[in-house]
Amino acid sequence: MSPLIYSLDLTGTFVFALSGGLAAARARLDPFGFVVVGIVTGLGGGTLRNLLLDVHPVTWVADPTYLAVCLVAAAVTFIWARQLESRLLWLRIADAFGLGLFAVAGTQLALTAGTHPGIAIAMGVTTGIVGGMIRDVLCNEVPLVLQRDVYALAALAGSTLYVALDALSFPPTWSAIAAFSACTGLRLAAIRWDLSLPTYKGGKMPPE
Amino acid sequence: MSPLIYSLDLTGTFVFALSGGLAAARARLDPFGFVVVGIVTGLGGGTLRNLLLDVHPVTWVADPTYLAVCLVAAAVTFIWARQLESRLLWLRIADAFGLGLFAVAGTQLALTAGTHPGIAIAMGVTTGIVGGMIRDVLCNEVPLVLQRDVYALAALAGSTLYVALDALSFPPTWSAIAAFSACTGLRLAAIRWDLSLPTYKGGKMPPE
Amino acid sequence: MSPLIYSLDLTGTFVFALSGGLAAARARLDPFGFVVVGIVTGLGGGTLRNLLLDVHPVTWVADPTYLAVCLVAAAVTFIWARQLESRLLWLRIADAFGLGLFAVAGTQLALTAGTHPGIAIAMGVTTGIVGGMIRDVLCNEVPLVLQRDVYALAALAGSTLYVALDALSFPPTWSAIAAFSACTGLRLAAIRWDLSLPTYKGGKMPPE
Repeated sequence: MSPLIYSLDLTGTFVFALSGGLAAARARLDPFGFVVVGIVTGLGGGTLRNLLLDVHPVTWVADPTYLAVCLVAAAVTFIWARQLESRLLWLRIADAFGLGLFAVAGTQLALTAGTHPGIAIAMGVTTGIVGGMIRDVLCNEVPLVLQRDVYALAALAGSTLYVALDALSFPPTWSAIAAFSACTGLRLAAIRWDLSLPTYKGGKMPPE
Repeated sequence: MSPLIYSLDLTGTFVFALSGGLAAARARLDPFGFVVVGIVTGLGGGTLRNLLLDVHPVTWVADPTYLAVCLVAAAVTFIWARQLESRLLWLRIADAFGLGLFAVAGTQLALTAGTHPGIAIAMGVTTGIVGGMIRDVLCNEVPLVLQRDVYALAALAGSTLYVALDALSFPPTWSAIAAFSACTGLRLAAIRWDLSLPTYKGGKMPPE
Repeated sequence: MSPLIYSLDLTGTFVFALSGGLAAARARLDPFGFVVVGIVTGLGGGTLRNLLLDVHPVTWVADPTYLAVCLVAAAVTFIWARQLESRLLWLRIADAFGLGLFAVAGTQLALTAGTHPGIAIAMGVTTGIVGGMIRDVLCNEVPLVLQRDVYALAALAGSTLYVALDALSFPPTWSAIAAFSACTGLRLAAIRWDLSLPTYKGGKMPPE
């Protein structure tokens, strides 16, 4: 990994871990809860992707810097959660950048591992959203990403664009920049104009 | 895989993904929520089995048709969830067939991988029930399969019968048909006569 | 594995599976729910650790005794949950021993697999706490270990001590005994004097 990519990857992990710490604050967890939720949010998506693709070692198992970054994020949120919440907009913007980075990184890694383009798209989305899904499950909520917000859709757009450009033989760097811009741009637009997908509005359904 | 087995496997995945989509409808998720819950319900059990047995590639990672089948099921439920609910009985019958297929397929794969018969049974049950368990956890419910209904028990019966017949050197096809019939038949009987295992009825227990 | 270590490992699994069965009783599950929650509580932590480290076969996949031990624990809790609850203190003490065993075993296995010391600590903690976390998620609760109680902290102390002594070239047996004593001792002290980490007490935070 180039130093630039490496620092971007760590930054994405940090921002995601911060969102885990904020969820821990909302759920009134103890310091250890902040650490665990921070770690799974920051590293969960990439870990599941690697397990599914059988790509070992898992990034953070080979390089403890990732774990350290999550610990710092957990400490930061435990101490300053209220202040962070009042700057929530900045955090969401940072999170949009993290999403773009993770979606591109996941897609790239899957293509490098030789998967079908459709699977590579799924891996990009997995990398981007699964950490947040585990975060919400641990905090006993239906994952936010499944309910509203153009979040997963942004990851999907970025991953798909990367795969398309790659199939057209664009150089990886160009594809990555374009896909990152699409994903993060779409996410930022969703934050700015409060875009959501419609949720299911069917009639009342009987419980099974 | 023979074309027959392959199409049965895809059918089982489709039916399971439909049940995921219906759960998404009940939880009022957005279209992306339908897709994610459909995918994990259709593919979660087999995926966990493969990870535990270290059998790679995971089926759907190698063959994107599985993912496509889940996407179609998600779309179908998003558009027609109400109509599907009114035909719930048919869906439950289809699901019983899916359970039988998955239990047999999981047991077979584990025995082929050389596991102990007891572990092969556990893998058959895992393949049959884990997708539905993750579905319910994502929708913030205690997994239905742990609470009532002869569901996991049917998977257990099918897997055990397969292992027993295999140990007695019956040909795989015969064992598979017998085990599938036992599992699906037991499940259909449970639907028809509303059979349940008793839940724990002990006195009120103090929370830990 | 020496016979002593092996029986200790099975004992730890049994005690953890008992705690899973008690959670199943509280959630009013059916017998199969006891079995599933017992198994994931007893074996979940070690399984995730092995998947993350790519160490195969997973212990219980290679040796069905572990699964059998969980089945016995599930049966015991289904039949005697009330009596067990009235002896909850004894169970919690046994659980403290299980935690110490699992934390040491997980750390040892990770170091043997050649991981960085920081990752080995994380694997010790993972082995100790993840089973209980999945247990609580299945029963639709925010994992207890993230909320209060010096539980994960005890696992962390034991794992860290083991890594430190190992780095100072102490013999494995000594390191294991010291680390086990630290973890289990700290946990017992927490039970005796009801020690907890403070949970997050920040002001009311807006939901995201």
